[in-house]
Amino acid sequence: MTRTVIESKTKTVTIGFDEPFCVIGERINPTGRKKLAAELELGDFSTVERDALEQVACGAMVLDINSGAVFSNKMAEDPRYADNNFVEPPLMRQLIERVSAVVDVPLCIDSSVPGALEAGLAAAEGRPLLNSVTGEEERMELVLPLVKKYNVPVVAISNDDTGISEDPDVRFAVAKKIVERAADFGIPAHDIVVDPLVMPIGAMATAGHQVFTLVRRLRDELGVNTTCGASNISFGLPHRHGVNAAFLPMAIAAGMTSAIMNPVRPVEMEAIRAANLLMNHDPNGTEWIKFSRVLEAVEGGASFAEASAAAAEASAGRGGRRRRRSA
Amino acid sequence: MTRTVIESKTKTVTIGFDEPFCVIGERINPTGRKKLAAELELGDFSTVERDALEQVACGAMVLDINSGAVFSNKMAEDPRYADNNFVEPPLMRQLIERVSAVVDVPLCIDSSVPGALEAGLAAAEGRPLLNSVTGEEERMELVLPLVKKYNVPVVAISNDDTGISEDPDVRFAVAKKIVERAADFGIPAHDIVVDPLVMPIGAMATAGHQVFTLVRRLRDELGVNTTCGASNISFGLPHRHGVNAAFLPMAIAAGMTSAIMNPVRPVEMEAIRAANLLMNHDPNGTEWIKFSRVLEAVEGGASFAEASAAAAEASAGRGGRRRRRSA
Repeated sequence: MTRTVIESKTKTVTIGFDEPFCVIGERINPTGRKKLAAELELGDFSTVERDALEQVACGAMVLDINSGAVFSNKMAEDPRYADNNFVEPPLMRQLIERVSAVVDVPLCIDSSVPGALEAGLAAAEGRPLLNSVTGEEERMELVLPLVKKYNVPVVAISNDDTGISEDPDVRFAVAKKIVERAADFGIPAHDIVVDPLVMPIGAMATAGHQVFTLVRRLRDELGVNTTCGASNISFGLPHRHGVNAAFLPMAIAAGMTSAIMNPVRPVEMEAIRAANLLMNHDPNGTEWIKFSRVLEAVEGGASFAEASAAAAEASAGRGGRRRRRSA
Repeated sequence: MTRTVIESKTKTVTIGFDEPFCVIGERINPTGRKKLAAELELGDFSTVERDALEQVACGAMVLDINSGAVFSNKMAEDPRYADNNFVEPPLMRQLIERVSAVVDVPLCIDSSVPGALEAGLAAAEGRPLLNSVTGEEERMELVLPLVKKYNVPVVAISNDDTGISEDPDVRFAVAKKIVERAADFGIPAHDIVVDPLVMPIGAMATAGHQVFTLVRRLRDELGVNTTCGASNISFGLPHRHGVNAAFLPMAIAAGMTSAIMNPVRPVEMEAIRAANLLMNHDPNGTEWIKFSRVLEAVEGGASFAEASAAAAEASAGRGGRRRRRSA
């Protein structure tokens, strides 16, 4: 059974076929969050810290840390800030330090800049997940040596120098190529978490089918764990959360083992908790019953983050924290 | 591709691997609805008529008609009423006449009494679905001749004279036996809709897995459509609708093609509509977009039944009714 082990200072999370679905919180990402980017430019990490706490309270098991900020004001004063190779490495280090100071969960170091990946690997405690390598030749030659050197698992995205193929067979072939190239570096398949790429169902009617089929093949033929940017599936549609909340259980039934997503959304998290129960990954329904109390509090008017935090605290008081560490 | 064709006077519904999931409305069933049974005893069909209209408005494509009423007062006056063979046949006829007068959708004739099944077959227009045969010898010998005589499809439940097995392989074998026995009567596999029996996940942790695996085998090895009493899965759990709403998409992804369920529940119906979209059974997302307007109305304070009825009316005004007929 394939097991991808990720660690923080004291906690271990295993992505695996026989494990509860691994929710990787996507919120700490200044790409497309202008307000957050502006705060970071001013050295203000309060949103990052709040997002870290909220996501973990809501059920994120791993936090993605993306350093892709654009510092427009600094750029005007100092042209070096126009280069992400200059901006991201120190920012990644700071983000990891700030997040690690408030939560103790494994991190997913996310950048398109190799220097930021290495800075993150040096700064993170435990065994972080690296995000990401693709099938592009240059990217593989830059990232796979880092994966080997730091002995960490890596997200492998199924696009290559020809771009993102709409043909799922091509995307499978790209994933296979990455797994094989990684093997050349001495990296085992269980340390590769493949993202088969989720297309918007509104633009491509076969997008759901493609993912379900790809996930099953990746699992059966390559023996790898899988992840995805889950909310892509509903891009452009009304009532996106409803589409996401059906997509996630279907992907889990097909064998998907993790997703990079917003955990501060009760609808999607409810779908995942229920899917864990239905996959027999929630012994005695303990987690479902605990979660149903959070849903009750939400129905009573609490925000999902508040209700989740209160439940997490109550659980820690009953020894939940200790149980979690040993998980 | 397996296609089970069910018809009302003017409408055709096809249960099939390449069709939207077939929702069979379960509400018209006096078993366990004491108030409804009491009304029927007094000859009051107003709840039945309202349930018929509501269920169809909410998206039921077929209506189950169960005649299993107990007429306690009449029984006290006339001992013949203690016998369901006496009560059910005329009641089934009346139920079908009343329902057919208010809605034009195919019916599912549901009784444990063979006389009620035959009364229903004689009364129903078009090509109803018969519910049900089991693997019990006596039941097969009573029901399969009716299926052949009236040339209708039938629900086959995977239990036999030894009861309901907890072993999914035994339930598969029972389904296979029914399909083979039906073939002896000249009934094709595409007219058998197998119910693999859904156990409560709270009582049996493997219940989800069992159903997903069984549905896939029934489809791949026997080539039959499938159905289930979907809400059984969540029996005894808190926040049942959340469990149901994950179970249905997972079962659909595994190949389940219909369910007998309560369609007057927005959570479950949203999950099914989204799953249809994700299975590529909703061209251009037309149905999802239409449904999202119903959800908006529900968010605005309308009941799901009201909002659905309003949307159905608006759609009929735009020629929706005609499109539906030709489906």
